[in-house]
Order: sequence, then structure tokens, then C-alpha cells
Amino acid sequence: MLSSKIQSTVRNVPDFPKKGINFKDITPLFKDSSLVTEMAEVIASQFKNQDINVVAGIESRGFLLGTMIASILKVPFVPIRKKGKLPYKTISEKYELEYGTAEIEMHIDAVESGDRVLVHDDLLATGGTAAATARLIEKAGGRVEGFSFIISLDFLEGRKVLEQHSNNIQSLTNY
Amino acid sequence: MLSSKIQSTVRNVPDFPKKGINFKDITPLFKDSSLVTEMAEVIASQFKNQDINVVAGIESRGFLLGTMIASILKVPFVPIRKKGKLPYKTISEKYELEYGTAEIEMHIDAVESGDRVLVHDDLLATGGTAAATARLIEKAGGRVEGFSFIISLDFLEGRKVLEQHSNNIQSLTNY
Repeated sequence: MLSSKIQSTVRNVPDFPKKGINFKDITPLFKDSSLVTEMAEVIASQFKNQDINVVAGIESRGFLLGTMIASILKVPFVPIRKKGKLPYKTISEKYELEYGTAEIEMHIDAVESGDRVLVHDDLLATGGTAAATARLIEKAGGRVEGFSFIISLDFLEGRKVLEQHSNNIQSLTNY
Repeated sequence: MLSSKIQSTVRNVPDFPKKGINFKDITPLFKDSSLVTEMAEVIASQFKNQDINVVAGIESRGFLLGTMIASILKVPFVPIRKKGKLPYKTISEKYELEYGTAEIEMHIDAVESGDRVLVHDDLLATGGTAAATARLIEKAGGRVEGFSFIISLDFLEGRKVLEQHSNNIQSLTNY
């Protein structure tokens, strides 16, 4: 089972990035190349009937599988980056952090009107970054056809935040 | 020709991140999924006889092809990240920027003694980050078998900095 393989490979790091948070370290997953290939292929297969024509990956852990998923689906890969990193003209969206706000950007020509976009990141927590990504895509005239994550932390209820953009929210394993 | 295809696809962005720098925007390369696959396959083939057993990709643009290259070579992928991003125990290396210094980290168990490592990033400029990555790998007991880049800015002479770690420095296109 892919889900149990992921859970037995992920490393739990207590008190990172701060006390009380049990961080899911995904780096051990990427030391197993057959697991990497399987994760990308399973995610691509979850969306193969959705006519996805763009995969948007969220910086920076969403880049790890994002290009592979796009490559398997034979569609463009678009990077969503922290403010100030993308060199060309961008559109941006703010989202709330526990204290303060953060901002992400996408190139203005990354997504076109009518594009059917799959949003990918490594982990779904509160859903703030993925929802901001969905708003960027919709602002550009695209449509979010689904969200894919390696891991979902269900107790943080990020799905509720994403469902207004797409009900197709997939993860390879859940906590 | 892959090299001319890359040069005709890369977008030149003047005065980014600051006046006088003509930035090579690689994001258009990733909108062409057959080009993405070809780039990853060509890089993997450049190192297929080197007994590479780890690919180290440098945050964050080195993640875009890094996992694909590792997947094709069927070896572990290891992320090299900016200070404070990796959750587990790390080793770190500083490197010089035009003003001040930056620091990168690698998990202490990412590379083991005797590992033969390929270092990947999107672009070779002055070579500071890639050289710091090589020092991290050597500190962990690994050996740098080569460096791979999509683009090399030859006029910045980054090769000179990297040659003390490995003479096998490959790029898909050069300026």
C-alpha cells in the first residue's frame, strides 16, 4: 500500500519549526527513487480523466513532484513562488499566516483563460497557500480542476478552505 | 538541437533582480513538457557511466529537474536548502554574495561516506552555491562526481570555482 509505505518512510520531527508542532519531514521519501516514481504516477493517474492542461506547483516542495506529474500528464508546469522571486510580470495573492500575512506570485502568462489546472503541493495543512494559488489561477481566468498533495493533515481541515475552488482534493496519505 | 531550443525558449528579463543584470527566466522551458522530459533525459545520460548514487538539487529551481534526473538514474534525490528550512539535523556551509554571505544546509543523513554525488542546479553563474554544495557533500564524506546545469553563464567563470571539486561540469546550453 502506497499510503502505509509513505507513513513508514516520512520522518516525524518534533518541535519544528516551533515547539508543539510535529513536522512531517518528506525528505526520506525522495531517497527512494521507486517510491518517487510511484507517487508521481499515482497522482497523475488520479487526474488523468480531468483534461488537466496545466500543473501548478507551489514553491518549493511542490516543485519536487510537480514537474514529474506535469511530465507524465504531458502538460505545462507552472511555478507558484514567494513574492519577489519570479523575474517577469506577475500577479499576486496574499494569505494569512498565524501572525501576519505572506504573498505568492505567478507569472501573468503562466495560466490562460480556460486553462484547467491541477494545483500540487507536498502537504495540505490549513490550506492557506493552496487557496491563494487557486485565487491566482482564477484571477488569470483559469479553472482549478483539482488539488493534489502527498500528505493531508486532516485535523487542520484545509479541505474546507479548498472546496470552494474544487471538490477534487486528493492526497496519497492522511493523518 | 537541444541547446538552440533552450536559448530560443528562455526569456531574457532585463534589470532583474537589479539594474544591469539580464536575467535568464527558465519558466518558459517548463511550459513545454516534451522539452522538460528531454532535458532530464539528456542530463541523466551525461552521467550514466559515472556510477552516480545520489543526485543533490539546490533549492528551489534545482528541484524542478532534480527529482526527474534522480528518478531516471534510479538513485536518491537529496534537497540542498536555504538555512532554517530543513527540519532534521543539518550540516551547513556559508558562501559569499556580492554583499554579505548566505548559508545552505543539507540533512546529516542525506549523503553517506563513499556516495558518488551529482550536483544539479538550473543555472551556473559565479558557482558560489554549487561550490558550497560540493563542500557540504565532501564534509559528509561523499564525493562530487559532477555538476549539471541547464544553463551556464560562461563569462562569469563559475567553472573555475567548481573544478577543484570535479572536472565533470555539464550544461545544456552556454552563454
